[in-house]
Amino acid sequence: MDVLVLKGHIVDAPVFGELHCCENGYLICQGGKIEGVYSALPAQYEGASVQDYGDKLIIPSFSDMHLHGPQYAMLGMGMDLQLLEWLNTYTFPTEAKFADSEYARMVYKKLAANLIRAGTTRVCMYASIHRKSTHILMEELEAAGVTGYVGKVNMDRNSPNYLLESTEQSISETILWLNECEGRYANVHPMLTPRFTPSCTDDLMLRLGEIACERGLLVQSHLSENLDEIAWVKALCPDCNSYWQTYARFGLFSDKTVMAHCVYSDKDERRAMLDHEVWVAHCPDSNINIASGIAPIRRMLNEGLNVTLGSDIAGGAHLSMMDVATAAIRSSKRHWLDTGKQENFLTVAEAFYLITSAGQKYFNAGPGFKAGDMLHALILDDEALLPHTFLTPEQRLERLMYLSQGNCIAARYSQGKPVG
Amino acid sequence: MDVLVLKGHIVDAPVFGELHCCENGYLICQGGKIEGVYSALPAQYEGASVQDYGDKLIIPSFSDMHLHGPQYAMLGMGMDLQLLEWLNTYTFPTEAKFADSEYARMVYKKLAANLIRAGTTRVCMYASIHRKSTHILMEELEAAGVTGYVGKVNMDRNSPNYLLESTEQSISETILWLNECEGRYANVHPMLTPRFTPSCTDDLMLRLGEIACERGLLVQSHLSENLDEIAWVKALCPDCNSYWQTYARFGLFSDKTVMAHCVYSDKDERRAMLDHEVWVAHCPDSNINIASGIAPIRRMLNEGLNVTLGSDIAGGAHLSMMDVATAAIRSSKRHWLDTGKQENFLTVAEAFYLITSAGQKYFNAGPGFKAGDMLHALILDDEALLPHTFLTPEQRLERLMYLSQGNCIAARYSQGKPVG
Repeated sequence: MDVLVLKGHIVDAPVFGELHCCENGYLICQGGKIEGVYSALPAQYEGASVQDYGDKLIIPSFSDMHLHGPQYAMLGMGMDLQLLEWLNTYTFPTEAKFADSEYARMVYKKLAANLIRAGTTRVCMYASIHRKSTHILMEELEAAGVTGYVGKVNMDRNSPNYLLESTEQSISETILWLNECEGRYANVHPMLTPRFTPSCTDDLMLRLGEIACERGLLVQSHLSENLDEIAWVKALCPDCNSYWQTYARFGLFSDKTVMAHCVYSDKDERRAMLDHEVWVAHCPDSNINIASGIAPIRRMLNEGLNVTLGSDIAGGAHLSMMDVATAAIRSSKRHWLDTGKQENFLTVAEAFYLITSAGQKYFNAGPGFKAGDMLHALILDDEALLPHTFLTPEQRLERLMYLSQGNCIAARYSQGKPVG
Repeated sequence: MDVLVLKGHIVDAPVFGELHCCENGYLICQGGKIEGVYSALPAQYEGASVQDYGDKLIIPSFSDMHLHGPQYAMLGMGMDLQLLEWLNTYTFPTEAKFADSEYARMVYKKLAANLIRAGTTRVCMYASIHRKSTHILMEELEAAGVTGYVGKVNMDRNSPNYLLESTEQSISETILWLNECEGRYANVHPMLTPRFTPSCTDDLMLRLGEIACERGLLVQSHLSENLDEIAWVKALCPDCNSYWQTYARFGLFSDKTVMAHCVYSDKDERRAMLDHEVWVAHCPDSNINIASGIAPIRRMLNEGLNVTLGSDIAGGAHLSMMDVATAAIRSSKRHWLDTGKQENFLTVAEAFYLITSAGQKYFNAGPGFKAGDMLHALILDDEALLPHTFLTPEQRLERLMYLSQGNCIAARYSQGKPVG
């Protein structure tokens, strides 16, 4: 069995709020699987070739739990607008371009390369309604070494004509796509993706719920992002008391579901997420860019919800999960001030947990570098910064999270192999 | 007279809230001074050699109106702490190291290079209490092409012993430094820098006020950053009703003064700043990192205050003023939500004005590319991003502000000359 030994300062977050550091340690893998972290090389591995990263840091790679592939084409644009206006002016026209496979190939190739460059090796990602370009996204992710889940988007109402499916078409294309995915990809898998309640008729939701149940599929959607959106959902679904019920009544709200945002989820909705073991993808950069609000993350964590982080490009303008982590910290600091310093802000260690261990769990891995998991790791190099003579590995990690924007990543491992 | 002609898409903000764009335009300089922006090359310059930047953008360079040179050594660290604890744990020990000229040289050389790299050509900057290393900072800025003002810091109370001057020492070193500066630098000049009221006795403030008056010097300090700090100032200066008076009573509060932060400046303090024509350096990244709060920038702008932007490294973790601009936008969006959408958030055009034209005024230049001013300009290259086929120059600028972190800058001009 092929043995891989990485040597360096190994930092991970196996427990929420705590950084564990093994200085000059050994991370050992067999057949791509983590065997363990050791402060000295165990006797049975003597003679194995060691990939010595010297004074560099070795950390788990990042999970981005919510992003829109096609919106990479409009990253950093239209940021003076709010959600619904921004969707109509920028997002929908951009997504429509993905009917063109050549355009999709060009954008997705760059996106996949830059995800890996930024250290993201696991994703839950929206594509667009287009079956063919959804495959192109999956192919490019797989080729670059990004693993995880991708969804062909479903939308059969309240969308511009050029980006609208009939209910039948949405279902038949989805089933065709799911069938085509079988055996086609090693590490990228399909998940169901009703865009959000305003874009999906009850009939579409019902049938997606049936497909999810029959095939045991994962599901992603949006929840309680913006006040105007919530009012709209209420008008569209007068028989539901709360936004979450518009998904739950069709079986699309379970421990297999990632719900992005949850900015305005009230106590009852949070309780429902807890009871249904739904995953929250907190997207702090996006939430402030398109002026949605600030999700009460500390409260969600205290209540025991599964909170993870997402870049939500292109509502978010940063692909690097390091930037998303510091955005989550900044957002939580504002919330701390707003609550009279009652709800503590996120620490660096906590935010690091959220971009590594918290997301990993959705992929049945972690927390931290857990024995038995496939290796997903990054090598961080801070040589270009001022000397770190006086700093601990933990302080060096903090500095890189705040400063690097991803350009400190010297090497990456995904699914047991070097990538990028 | 030497003529410089730059050709490209010229974008500037001569009016608050408006971007002006001259596509495929000509920016003409004579002897380093801007002569004008033209859509066609005027007849008298035919035959002049043209620096053709093709499809790139040409914009004014940035002014950073508040930053701490020595704190560059601790950029991105200690961010789980708040102002007063952060000062004692990280900042003061870091600044003490600048007694060592060799250390100062190493840090300041890198800082100056990275300021230019990030497109900042004008600064108002704190050094430390150390006269010699303040000169080293000024030398390195001058060599790199950064222009503006630097202050040897004064602090004679409430500081750790290793970073404390006696009042006499503080004054005599300041005078010696000011005398040494005469004729020594072409484009970097001294400004008086009482750290903040808690660090300076009344006697020190009195004598700095006299020096400022005698020599016609500019002044920089901190104002109303943090609630604990404000309470402390109240206790230290029971005879002053408001923080601003602790400066004003000694003549340190005028149209020559830059006050950093002003997060909690109430109506009376804002009125005093308006009456005294004081300059506000808003530092949004710092204010949220060390959890101070959010300054009511829209209100200040509406009231007619001179609002500029500062990175405030290392409270701020980003040297790039593009990052500071988007931080100001994010901060203002939160404030917009907090005020029930009454106080509009900053637009991209407004934030761009604040990092270019607004600061330039303090250096007797601008707004925008103004005829008669020395050329301070950047060439922006977005080739590494996705194609900009569908984008206007203004949209390309927005995208670069949100994404680039300064690595899009292909060339820089400072004080009429290419630098970097």
